[in-house]
Amino acid sequence: MQKDSHIKKFKSFPKLPKINGFRLSSCNANIRYEGRHDLMLAEFISGTSVGGIMTSSQVIGAPVKWNKKIISHGKARALVVNSGIANVFTGKDGDLAVLRTANKVSEELNCNLDEVFIASTGTIGEYLDDSKITNKIGWLLSNLKKDNWENAANSILTTDTFPKGTSQSCQIDGTDVQIAGIAKGSGMIAPDMATMLAFIITDANLSSNLIQELIKNGNEKSFGCITVDSDTSTSDTLLMFSTNQANHERVFDINDPRLKDFALALDQVLIDLAKKIVIDGEGAKKFIQINTRGAVSNSSAKKIGLSIANSPLVKTAIAGEDANWGRVVMAIGKSGEKVDAGQISVSFGSFQLASKGEKVKKIDEVKIAEYLKGEFIEIFVSVGNNDGESTVWTCDLTREYIAINADYRT
Amino acid sequence: MQKDSHIKKFKSFPKLPKINGFRLSSCNANIRYEGRHDLMLAEFISGTSVGGIMTSSQVIGAPVKWNKKIISHGKARALVVNSGIANVFTGKDGDLAVLRTANKVSEELNCNLDEVFIASTGTIGEYLDDSKITNKIGWLLSNLKKDNWENAANSILTTDTFPKGTSQSCQIDGTDVQIAGIAKGSGMIAPDMATMLAFIITDANLSSNLIQELIKNGNEKSFGCITVDSDTSTSDTLLMFSTNQANHERVFDINDPRLKDFALALDQVLIDLAKKIVIDGEGAKKFIQINTRGAVSNSSAKKIGLSIANSPLVKTAIAGEDANWGRVVMAIGKSGEKVDAGQISVSFGSFQLASKGEKVKKIDEVKIAEYLKGEFIEIFVSVGNNDGESTVWTCDLTREYIAINADYRT
Repeated sequence: MQKDSHIKKFKSFPKLPKINGFRLSSCNANIRYEGRHDLMLAEFISGTSVGGIMTSSQVIGAPVKWNKKIISHGKARALVVNSGIANVFTGKDGDLAVLRTANKVSEELNCNLDEVFIASTGTIGEYLDDSKITNKIGWLLSNLKKDNWENAANSILTTDTFPKGTSQSCQIDGTDVQIAGIAKGSGMIAPDMATMLAFIITDANLSSNLIQELIKNGNEKSFGCITVDSDTSTSDTLLMFSTNQANHERVFDINDPRLKDFALALDQVLIDLAKKIVIDGEGAKKFIQINTRGAVSNSSAKKIGLSIANSPLVKTAIAGEDANWGRVVMAIGKSGEKVDAGQISVSFGSFQLASKGEKVKKIDEVKIAEYLKGEFIEIFVSVGNNDGESTVWTCDLTREYIAINADYRT
Repeated sequence: MQKDSHIKKFKSFPKLPKINGFRLSSCNANIRYEGRHDLMLAEFISGTSVGGIMTSSQVIGAPVKWNKKIISHGKARALVVNSGIANVFTGKDGDLAVLRTANKVSEELNCNLDEVFIASTGTIGEYLDDSKITNKIGWLLSNLKKDNWENAANSILTTDTFPKGTSQSCQIDGTDVQIAGIAKGSGMIAPDMATMLAFIITDANLSSNLIQELIKNGNEKSFGCITVDSDTSTSDTLLMFSTNQANHERVFDINDPRLKDFALALDQVLIDLAKKIVIDGEGAKKFIQINTRGAVSNSSAKKIGLSIANSPLVKTAIAGEDANWGRVVMAIGKSGEKVDAGQISVSFGSFQLASKGEKVKKIDEVKIAEYLKGEFIEIFVSVGNNDGESTVWTCDLTREYIAINADYRT
């Protein structure tokens, strides 16, 4: 079982590798924050492939609209990200701000407009003065470095309390390749200052269609399994870039056996970033892993897990260090998924509290209380005798969440 | 527009009418609470019709299982309700507790077992010692009164802060009839101590099938339009009893023109109780009414309204007296319902903050801040040019909600 010390490790920024064909820079553009970086630029070598997915919200920001339009072309030369203002609900002015930014970068890099990706995170409805960004493009391009990871990871934060990065090395067809990524998002999916952004870079030689498939699958197992407050951002963006500099032949097919090691490493990168987002959940004091088994299918198990993870009553109970398994049972019931009520069992850590539809009579309250004082809480749920299982991650719901979100804008 | 003084009026218990064929009593049975009533019994005259609906949760309490089994017979002689322990997740012992209670009442009243309805609200997973209830049945039957409304309404409360009752008079075919009801539930639909229970009694002469239809329709417009924390109880129960003592011929058909006045009055009773539940939402300081229009259908408008009403970020913003319309836009987007982003408008009270997909540029921040200090906050949302509309009710999400729910069980 994961120990509290692991939580601390999650919060420190790791050393990330240099990746051939990729450089980064960041600066303060005074968009909203003073005295910290709030703008980053990533440059990719010509021929870089890209794929990704964006928020499913019906109301999307201007940058998301832009990326959705260009991503099918599958090529990238640059990524520009600002924090402070999300450029959402800003009408034609917002679209023009994106266009002018992309245009400036494409002129400077002498690349196509549809090779410039844009992401913004911050307040909704405020107009983004893109001259603050375009004025900095020249400086950013002159200061690109291969190892600027931590500065860049810092520049995309909003209410996050620590920068998030991770990496893995693996092999494709005997050739070493690197995968690295940075992310932000502390109310997973809070709209205001806590959009989820994640950017993955690899030197592997992959087609853009393959990246698209890899990201779709990987997202299901990682960002699709976390929740902080059940709210969905207008700006959520996950992009993966392959510079194609690694010395193996290009991979096109997700079923290609050469991809096995890489796909596992990529999942690890995505899951690691997803967990870091939850650990930094707004106001969170505890990281909660919910393991569901016995459901009629994996997708049913995931719905049950997310129903538990999204329940304010479960999350406040954990905040109060209360092994309130009754609320877990309630959340299983409200999921709407088929369960066998007489077979439901619930454990907190190694302590079983409900078994086959009834309370366990003898429990060691002292040891359970001790367990609940920890920062890493694991809930095991069994809902029947079928094979469906899932693991999802969330955090507790604390007074600090309310404080952050009640007092934020004013 | 509703004024703050109306909120105060909602919190006071009104004088409810005596209804022919119906009597009530309540007492302390020491189930969980000392020094207050926690058990009530309602007696209905022979020939009383009944209909109702119960929680859609997949995990239901023993009393809900019982009521679901007997309600199709359509006859009622008694209703027994306790607070403190919900008798949920208690296996066969829980079922036996219900059976013994119903059996005791049926012996005393000399009625059928399937005419005795049972409801329990309180902690999940605790065993209910039904002897505490059966020992009191004799006393309760000897102390029945027509006007015992407020005591009974108090006896069914858990974390609620005030008893909830309401009534309407109307006519059926020229005959005066009364409708009265009591309810509880303060985290609307929190599992532990805040199940939603509502009981409606009328002297109208109605078939049980008609009651069933009336309650199903009425619920959609009332309890179906409120949310406190998005959690769903294992015990939610709404029952309506008609003693059939009013001097008009029995009504069987929901389209019977004689029913028009009654149906409106019943909706009013249900909506009134639903609003009282929200006003008493756990930790709530403000009552929020969300009016959505322009959606593709009424049901789409309701989904959008509930998406806004369930968003922790919208609810914390209102708690912080912040007209954060950006979060409202986010919640519209995440509803998954079809909307025209370029047509979205949002107002708080009479203050329009977003219009046709963009922020309103000139707003009177001082007056808006003044408005948000009130206890009644109305949000108007337009999402397109279609005819679908809805009104839903919720409350703000405060530090006190966390305090109540983090510290409750331990």
